[in-house]
Amino acid sequence: MGGDRGPSAVVGGLAKSAKKNPDLAFILHGPRAELEPLVARRKHLADRVEIRDAADVVSMEDKPAQVMRNGKGTSMWSALESVRAGEATVCVSCGNTGALMALSVLRLRRLAGIYRPAIAVLWPSRNPQGFNVLLDGGADIRADAKDLMQYALMGTSYARNGLNLEHPRVGLLNVGTEEHKGRAELKEAHDLIAANASQAGFKFVGFVEGRDLPSDVCDVIVTDGFTGNVALKTGEGTASLISEQLRAAFQYSPLSRLASLLAYTSLQRLKKRIDPRRVNGGVFLGLNGTVVKSHGSADATGVAAAIKLAFQLAESGFSDRLAARVASANLPSRYGDGDDDDSDDDAVTKESN
Amino acid sequence: MGGDRGPSAVVGGLAKSAKKNPDLAFILHGPRAELEPLVARRKHLADRVEIRDAADVVSMEDKPAQVMRNGKGTSMWSALESVRAGEATVCVSCGNTGALMALSVLRLRRLAGIYRPAIAVLWPSRNPQGFNVLLDGGADIRADAKDLMQYALMGTSYARNGLNLEHPRVGLLNVGTEEHKGRAELKEAHDLIAANASQAGFKFVGFVEGRDLPSDVCDVIVTDGFTGNVALKTGEGTASLISEQLRAAFQYSPLSRLASLLAYTSLQRLKKRIDPRRVNGGVFLGLNGTVVKSHGSADATGVAAAIKLAFQLAESGFSDRLAARVASANLPSRYGDGDDDDSDDDAVTKESN
Repeated sequence: MGGDRGPSAVVGGLAKSAKKNPDLAFILHGPRAELEPLVARRKHLADRVEIRDAADVVSMEDKPAQVMRNGKGTSMWSALESVRAGEATVCVSCGNTGALMALSVLRLRRLAGIYRPAIAVLWPSRNPQGFNVLLDGGADIRADAKDLMQYALMGTSYARNGLNLEHPRVGLLNVGTEEHKGRAELKEAHDLIAANASQAGFKFVGFVEGRDLPSDVCDVIVTDGFTGNVALKTGEGTASLISEQLRAAFQYSPLSRLASLLAYTSLQRLKKRIDPRRVNGGVFLGLNGTVVKSHGSADATGVAAAIKLAFQLAESGFSDRLAARVASANLPSRYGDGDDDDSDDDAVTKESN
Repeated sequence: MGGDRGPSAVVGGLAKSAKKNPDLAFILHGPRAELEPLVARRKHLADRVEIRDAADVVSMEDKPAQVMRNGKGTSMWSALESVRAGEATVCVSCGNTGALMALSVLRLRRLAGIYRPAIAVLWPSRNPQGFNVLLDGGADIRADAKDLMQYALMGTSYARNGLNLEHPRVGLLNVGTEEHKGRAELKEAHDLIAANASQAGFKFVGFVEGRDLPSDVCDVIVTDGFTGNVALKTGEGTASLISEQLRAAFQYSPLSRLASLLAYTSLQRLKKRIDPRRVNGGVFLGLNGTVVKSHGSADATGVAAAIKLAFQLAESGFSDRLAARVASANLPSRYGDGDDDDSDDDAVTKESN
């Protein structure tokens, strides 16, 4: 309900997905009176959507802490509740990211041993699979060495189940690739990740730099949520500046306008390759259950892409596999399990996220 | 001497610059026997280059700490020495960034009141001037609230003298634009910068996000050197991925190859607009003297761009103006001047940079 384009874009996305994939069924959360006519209009959704009535909506402006206290009647709460109860395998939402993460931690709870859940984001790359995984994309502005090591494990699970990579290569984001560079917690994380690579079935390529995010030197890039969020948005901003200038270059003269007509299919191919709607879906990792966060401004195509990703993760048994991987990690005894207090009120859910 | 293309690219850059600008003269540092024939071959350099013999070279692999101890015979040391002695107005180098920053701090010393010098980098943008200033681009992986406020002052001076902006708009990089978001030191920096805006003659636009780096909401973007370096390299990596894919799209079919011929001038225009060689030069700010760091792989065109920037800064009296601006800043008494111990051996010059 809380996405920028409202429920009609979401129902449009359900219809697109339902048409392509006969194995999908949906529980749709929100005000029944508003949703019923939208669903009735789509023939592919007949008998495949159950509407779960929820009167309230989390808006993009709501503060996470507020939603945690007063959000019980919202469609977001109801959607997470259906995952918690085992009725839905995975939750997809276009709503407020901070509130969705806070409510997800509150209702689904963190996996045993995980202190900071993360958001994994797909990033266009030169790799054969077309994308790299970056995490944390902005769930938490902090991450210590243990968190970063767990991001490597979770990213490995995601790359295996979401991108079909048997032995993903993991890199740790830093300002240089030399081992003496960077912050102290990054050196510690470097050693912890290296120690877990062979048992967890990934290859650790060591430190990588910002320019490696779209490269083929690794498949999974690990960083804290502050750096990850800045990097993602910088990449988006750069890409959109270049597209604008490309359009302007082709409008410049009659000859360049003619060229753009001839190049139409080539440019469409490029546009499709870097179309953000095709890679729509940040995945929340480290919870008891899978949550896919679609872009707030997603249209029906974007929502369908998020649903496709959610389906693939659900079908691969991703959530259980990830839990098993995290549980089997080697941690030096000083890390212990002390962080796993299972309380509802710390770091991740603060407004600073 | 230590750039990727050696001294011939540098001498080629001098010749290009000398031809365009009759007010330039050069002191060139390195082994005389190697440099003399290179200079003699260029007619525009006759009587305009003084060679200062220096036998040793700082390589890209040398550690900054090593160079500080044993670098006395290097061309880099000699070049900085000529600025320190007042013989040269500004130093331009294509060499090892970490070593150049370490030696610059050692020989030129920090400005009174400055604890962390910064590297200011130009970034293509939608603004009329075509570029935004980002700092710190990687001089120091840390920055506290006071440092960030000083970056705002130094960035303002740079935008005024390097980009001719009378009242630059300054933004502070964060993961969201809401005031409750981000790290604690960022909230503190927000208030310190706001308090200095009107006296220092800039407009503070508050928090900005990664996607605002190429935008027209501000002219100067302030951040710590870790985040700044990751953002710069992510932007570079994204831009080069897109250029590759654009080339591939135009090679795809006979029709698209024809289109690329017709679009040739449009594409050249775009290429020129985002050509990294045109904006070649990170400027070290916060020292007694100006140092311009050219890209290590710069060719003659790149070196000439760095020299042009150096000339503009030298002519505007940039170094003195920046010092005056920093000295006049309003600092709450708790910051005092305790940081300014003028010693040579702390943070900035460590190998972690």
